[in-house]
Amino acid sequence: MNYSSKLLEQAVEEFGRLPGIGKRTALRLVLHLLNQSEEEVLKFTEAIASMKTDIKFCRGCFNISDQEVCEICRSPKRDSSVICVVEDTRDVMAIENTHQFQGMYHVLGGLISPMEGVGPNDLKINELVNRVRGQEIKEVILALSATMEGDTTIFYMYRKLKELNVQITTIARGISFGGELEYVDEVTLGRSILSRIPYERNVS
Amino acid sequence: MNYSSKLLEQAVEEFGRLPGIGKRTALRLVLHLLNQSEEEVLKFTEAIASMKTDIKFCRGCFNISDQEVCEICRSPKRDSSVICVVEDTRDVMAIENTHQFQGMYHVLGGLISPMEGVGPNDLKINELVNRVRGQEIKEVILALSATMEGDTTIFYMYRKLKELNVQITTIARGISFGGELEYVDEVTLGRSILSRIPYERNVS
Repeated sequence: MNYSSKLLEQAVEEFGRLPGIGKRTALRLVLHLLNQSEEEVLKFTEAIASMKTDIKFCRGCFNISDQEVCEICRSPKRDSSVICVVEDTRDVMAIENTHQFQGMYHVLGGLISPMEGVGPNDLKINELVNRVRGQEIKEVILALSATMEGDTTIFYMYRKLKELNVQITTIARGISFGGELEYVDEVTLGRSILSRIPYERNVS
Repeated sequence: MNYSSKLLEQAVEEFGRLPGIGKRTALRLVLHLLNQSEEEVLKFTEAIASMKTDIKFCRGCFNISDQEVCEICRSPKRDSSVICVVEDTRDVMAIENTHQFQGMYHVLGGLISPMEGVGPNDLKINELVNRVRGQEIKEVILALSATMEGDTTIFYMYRKLKELNVQITTIARGISFGGELEYVDEVTLGRSILSRIPYERNVS
């Protein structure tokens, strides 16, 4: 595209670097910002800049936090003997939203992915092993996505953790609630038959 | 959503203000930026900030430009007696891409829209009338979108311009090249029958 201004082009290019934002969308967003007041654009850029420079990661669980130790890690109401291992902060938010989990978290910061050059040492796996070794942990729940990267990461952590005196669990996989059987993919359906559970447990 | 950090929440909120960006997408974009180096995030915020503060609008056609007068307005190769009136800089880019137009532009900066509180005085319509009055203009092409706002704006400009000694044209509307007849909407199809042209003109 032929931009009438170098400054415009640069801003569009920067927006276009974001995931899922093409050149056309980037141009639309930039022109939107250009129509805003200078004050509002400043608010936008400053929110991003201070997010980047001032955000901390909790020393305990490595979740994004404004403090050294996050609220969940500090809370006396949470069960500190259960650790739920997740990929990133979005998963913490999703699980917190269910109100079904009262333990602690451990945020890996990604999944093992040879394709994207992410190895075990790029993630907080050693930190997890140290936590399990150093504290009284009864259970580690591996709550990762049901993808190849997720499974690889689970397998790697399982091997690291299995010699420690801790129960290792993964979240249940099966057909979604409300999901119609005929539309479920065959892998999920097959696995959910293999992992069938007694009816009494299902309704309790 | 429950964010683990106020800074994160603010950045997500600012991104979520952009058109077409929901909370989930905003969070994804912010987490992407958080994973980038500080240098790259700085490049992003500075490109936006300097775009906002340093971009100029051409004195002649009001298109976005880095200079007082844009390249098109300065070019001796362009026909300064024909003005193509468009909504914004994207339309200039689109028309320039066709290589079919050698005249000048006039960028209105929007369309008349009572719904969004945009009146004629918010646009560069008076400036257009002054250009036509002050310079030797033979033709004004009204190249606006085929929407209600576009039609309203065309009608308003037509009334302002018709007493001046200038030919007023609009770009042709009809079925797209490659468009299959049965999928064309009925308004477009009906209009394209009413606006039919001799075959000899169509192939020339």
